[in-house]
Amino acid sequence: MPTVLPKIFLKYRASIDNALRTELSENSNPVYNMLRYNMGWVDLDGIPTDGKEGKALRPTLCLFACEAVGGFNRQAMPTAVALELIHCFSLIHDDIQDKDEFRHHRPTLWTVWGVPKALTAGNILRMVADMALEKLRSEGIASDISLQGVQMLTDAYLSMIEGQYLDLFYEGRHDISIPQYLDMISRKTGALIRCSTTIGAFIGNQDKQAVASMGRFGMSLGYIFQIRDDILGVWGDEQNTGKPVGADIKRKKNSLPIVYSMSTIQGIDRQTLHDIYDGNNLSNEQVSTVLEIMARSKVLEYAKSLAELHAEAALKELSLMNIDRKTRSEARELVYFLLERDH
Amino acid sequence: MPTVLPKIFLKYRASIDNALRTELSENSNPVYNMLRYNMGWVDLDGIPTDGKEGKALRPTLCLFACEAVGGFNRQAMPTAVALELIHCFSLIHDDIQDKDEFRHHRPTLWTVWGVPKALTAGNILRMVADMALEKLRSEGIASDISLQGVQMLTDAYLSMIEGQYLDLFYEGRHDISIPQYLDMISRKTGALIRCSTTIGAFIGNQDKQAVASMGRFGMSLGYIFQIRDDILGVWGDEQNTGKPVGADIKRKKNSLPIVYSMSTIQGIDRQTLHDIYDGNNLSNEQVSTVLEIMARSKVLEYAKSLAELHAEAALKELSLMNIDRKTRSEARELVYFLLERDH
Repeated sequence: MPTVLPKIFLKYRASIDNALRTELSENSNPVYNMLRYNMGWVDLDGIPTDGKEGKALRPTLCLFACEAVGGFNRQAMPTAVALELIHCFSLIHDDIQDKDEFRHHRPTLWTVWGVPKALTAGNILRMVADMALEKLRSEGIASDISLQGVQMLTDAYLSMIEGQYLDLFYEGRHDISIPQYLDMISRKTGALIRCSTTIGAFIGNQDKQAVASMGRFGMSLGYIFQIRDDILGVWGDEQNTGKPVGADIKRKKNSLPIVYSMSTIQGIDRQTLHDIYDGNNLSNEQVSTVLEIMARSKVLEYAKSLAELHAEAALKELSLMNIDRKTRSEARELVYFLLERDH
Repeated sequence: MPTVLPKIFLKYRASIDNALRTELSENSNPVYNMLRYNMGWVDLDGIPTDGKEGKALRPTLCLFACEAVGGFNRQAMPTAVALELIHCFSLIHDDIQDKDEFRHHRPTLWTVWGVPKALTAGNILRMVADMALEKLRSEGIASDISLQGVQMLTDAYLSMIEGQYLDLFYEGRHDISIPQYLDMISRKTGALIRCSTTIGAFIGNQDKQAVASMGRFGMSLGYIFQIRDDILGVWGDEQNTGKPVGADIKRKKNSLPIVYSMSTIQGIDRQTLHDIYDGNNLSNEQVSTVLEIMARSKVLEYAKSLAELHAEAALKELSLMNIDRKTRSEARELVYFLLERDH
């Protein structure tokens, strides 16, 4: 039984979905069919699906932060939409890079349309995100605030893509330290999540302290999110995650469990790990061996405790914010969900 | 003997080069080495080259337009830099899509570093372009003007990438009409060149008529540039272009000579063309056959006359502009260069 989505996701779901669909509505260029397929709205023939959308974590955080500091969430919708589209764009390119054939149990764009079209479709989605930002002005946000918002987003996704590059750069290496790993994920995943709360708060209320506080909250959420992702990538239930146990081991992905194992485990287990990771195409037996070594070394416990540390920081930050009781409680629920989610 | 670059390119070359290097200066992320290699500044080991840079057509047009309407070219430098970086980003992704192994006689990024890193490097360059725009404010451009400038650029490169997608979508088809082709290149190449003059004029002087006039001038230049590119792609001299005669035929590229041939030639030649283009991997003999058919049908003459029509339009637009004699003369020289260039 998968963990239940907290209320905060349901609150904004319809308006986010509506705004996203508006940005990708009918257009004579055939690439928009690919983009609607990518969002899960239509099947390969362009027929509408009743498929469930993703969590829309980033836009939800953005609207939440805007409202929490006293703004109208509607005004943060252009940035919320841009955040989600940038996230989706990065997944399209990720799938090309990682040669992933499926995402959410559906064939990825490059497997259906080929790399050149998928690459371009990703780039177009990235631009549609920029176009969405042009609506800040029509929502009544002043030019200088809009411009600063655009710049915050630009900074965040430059950081995100630099993180993706570091991830590729670290591939196949055995000497990545925990701080290097944390720096990499703080960019790759953290930058956009942190930007979601920061920019939402900034659109809602330009109070520097409130914006900075929401930024720190978002930063903690980013760590929790990615560490949990790494945990699910190794120990997740295939029924919930769509990936078999040990999936990230088999793909030799740079994730916390393996970085921690590589950098801390000593003796024979260390040698075994290195030998396995030096080879190509890990067998299922080798994946089992790695899982056994991780179990002996309490890697899961380490990862969970690291996520919990960041959850404590997030809750502390929340407790210091000048926000109402209901909002705080919704945000707390979100922290626990990110910490424990199984999908 | 290659056509000589007109003075207008030399005028801004040093300041453009300097501004570009500032955006891609030392950074601990190893991707910046790839990006400097891509700009032609360093070799594969990171050692500075004395290699000549490209023409920097787009930034040159941008600074020229700004100055022509009475602005300070320095103020348009952030947009000029962004235009060039976006152009370079699109070439990195183009090379991946087309599997091109060389550009300007140097190995392309994906052949050296692999597709995943090259793809990401392109995305980073695209973001560095956005970051460059943040300097508009420090050049004293007001927030609302800056924001409109950012939006013009966003619109232009959405159009550019939609054009790239159409190009992929048209691949392998024999029924592309001349208007469809012209629409495709007006986006793929035209949008950014048109934006170069439009945005330059807009930064220099927000007079609507002056901006629109520079926009029409840029639009004509875009057509001339791409039609000449298509001519060089079929009949260019390998020593100047780096590509053998018939290169675009061999690659079955959607270019004006072939679109025109496919859509106008009748009888036996038509059947021969279609048969050749239906096969894979054109032989040198087949390329020669296509060249002979094109010669019989005066395809080169058609392409040249189409470019000349757009040159006339550009010169007419120039003659109506309220700019000084010297500026007009420099711009005329540019039009003739684009029409006749052999590299």
